Amino acid sequence: MEKIKSLQNSRIKAWASLHQKKYRDESGLFLVEGDHLIEEALKANCVETIISDGSKDFDFKDVVIVSEEVMKKLSKNVSSISCMAVCKKMEATIQEPTRIVLLENVQDPGNLGTIIRSAVAFRFDAIYLSEDCCDTYNEKTIRSSQGAIFSIPIFRGNIKDYLYALKKEGFYLVGTDLQESHPLGKVEKKEKMAFIFGNEGSGLSEECKKSTDENIRIEMQGFESLNVAVAAGIILYQFQK
Amino acid sequence: MEKIKSLQNSRIKAWASLHQKKYRDESGLFLVEGDHLIEEALKANCVETIISDGSKDFDFKDVVIVSEEVMKKLSKNVSSISCMAVCKKMEATIQEPTRIVLLENVQDPGNLGTIIRSAVAFRFDAIYLSEDCCDTYNEKTIRSSQGAIFSIPIFRGNIKDYLYALKKEGFYLVGTDLQESHPLGKVEKKEKMAFIFGNEGSGLSEECKKSTDENIRIEMQGFESLNVAVAAGIILYQFQK
Repeated sequence: MEKIKSLQNSRIKAWASLHQKKYRDESGLFLVEGDHLIEEALKANCVETIISDGSKDFDFKDVVIVSEEVMKKLSKNVSSISCMAVCKKMEATIQEPTRIVLLENVQDPGNLGTIIRSAVAFRFDAIYLSEDCCDTYNEKTIRSSQGAIFSIPIFRGNIKDYLYALKKEGFYLVGTDLQESHPLGKVEKKEKMAFIFGNEGSGLSEECKKSTDENIRIEMQGFESLNVAVAAGIILYQFQK
Repeated sequence: MEKIKSLQNSRIKAWASLHQKKYRDESGLFLVEGDHLIEEALKANCVETIISDGSKDFDFKDVVIVSEEVMKKLSKNVSSISCMAVCKKMEATIQEPTRIVLLENVQDPGNLGTIIRSAVAFRFDAIYLSEDCCDTYNEKTIRSSQGAIFSIPIFRGNIKDYLYALKKEGFYLVGTDLQESHPLGKVEKKEKMAFIFGNEGSGLSEECKKSTDENIRIEMQGFESLNVAVAAGIILYQFQK
């Protein structure tokens, strides 16, 4: 099998460009790094090409062997890795959901990935992102999701439209608010529930808070707030299916 | 007041070196960035020098005004900031604790900072770190703690010695384990409890798991594991004072 050594190779240049959101959006492609994520991507049937240093065999239709230098150019990992994959974005579809997470303007890719991971752990059916949330296909989001992005449908759009549609479908909408809110321990489990978390600095917008059926807070004595991924984890744990 | 413009100034060079753990360890000093963290550091009485671009007045004994270029050299923040502070590490002391968090080989500064933040939110009394945990005074740890590092004593040492000492003081030791463990919902609250969380990839060491009174797992259906800061958040929430 031919080994690509040139950083100027057109496929390598195209793949390297996938570190930028603009090119991911244009091409519908994104990169994942390392064995575990490739395995998850293969299960989800969204791998286009596996890029390998040749140290391991892959039973796949399109495997490209590259030099160490090329791998370094393609990888964002600080330690050297032996394989990557070019994946195509999946179309999100959903059937009869009963547990939804909505995120409004979450900016940190690590937080987004961690929330996706928790949502899968607690068997939520889908994630709805506002248009201004950070990119799902950012390498930090993918890494901190630990591959969970391949196991749950993720939608992106207008958060007000989502809330309106969910309400119509009989979902009980729960927001988070430090002030006018009920303690988490007092909230009843309902058949269909959707939970909304907001921006790291400013929390949920007033508009979102007003659109919910109930706003809740996590009981605490010591500090004014929690990291949004921790807050989401605590709440999703309580209301898992 | 004099404005330092030279990157070669000896104080500037010494402060810039504080981005490396080696120099933080040698000097006992570390840097924090931005208004909120400086405020928390001032409350904790551990600020040595405030470094400012001059846009804001500080009522403090040692304020140094620097040029934009110098601030850029000193800051790790991607967006420009107007102030930083040089702080001295605090000596950790503790009185009659009843809730302790222990961390074994936690490697990600973001996770460490987030766990510290949750521990303060849920009124834990102290954090004990194994020697191989990442540095508390790394700028990412400080940033993700949102200043909580100034509100809780943090010790670093031999984890086995800590476990032994806590056991002798009557603490009920709770570890985390995905396999041989009890579900979190079944664990009784005790007067004195210590919770131990392990490495992001490998979890708690066998030795630690064997030293505990009980090992627990967070009930979940969907995925094999959670981010360690999320897991810690869920457990600390349940057992807060």
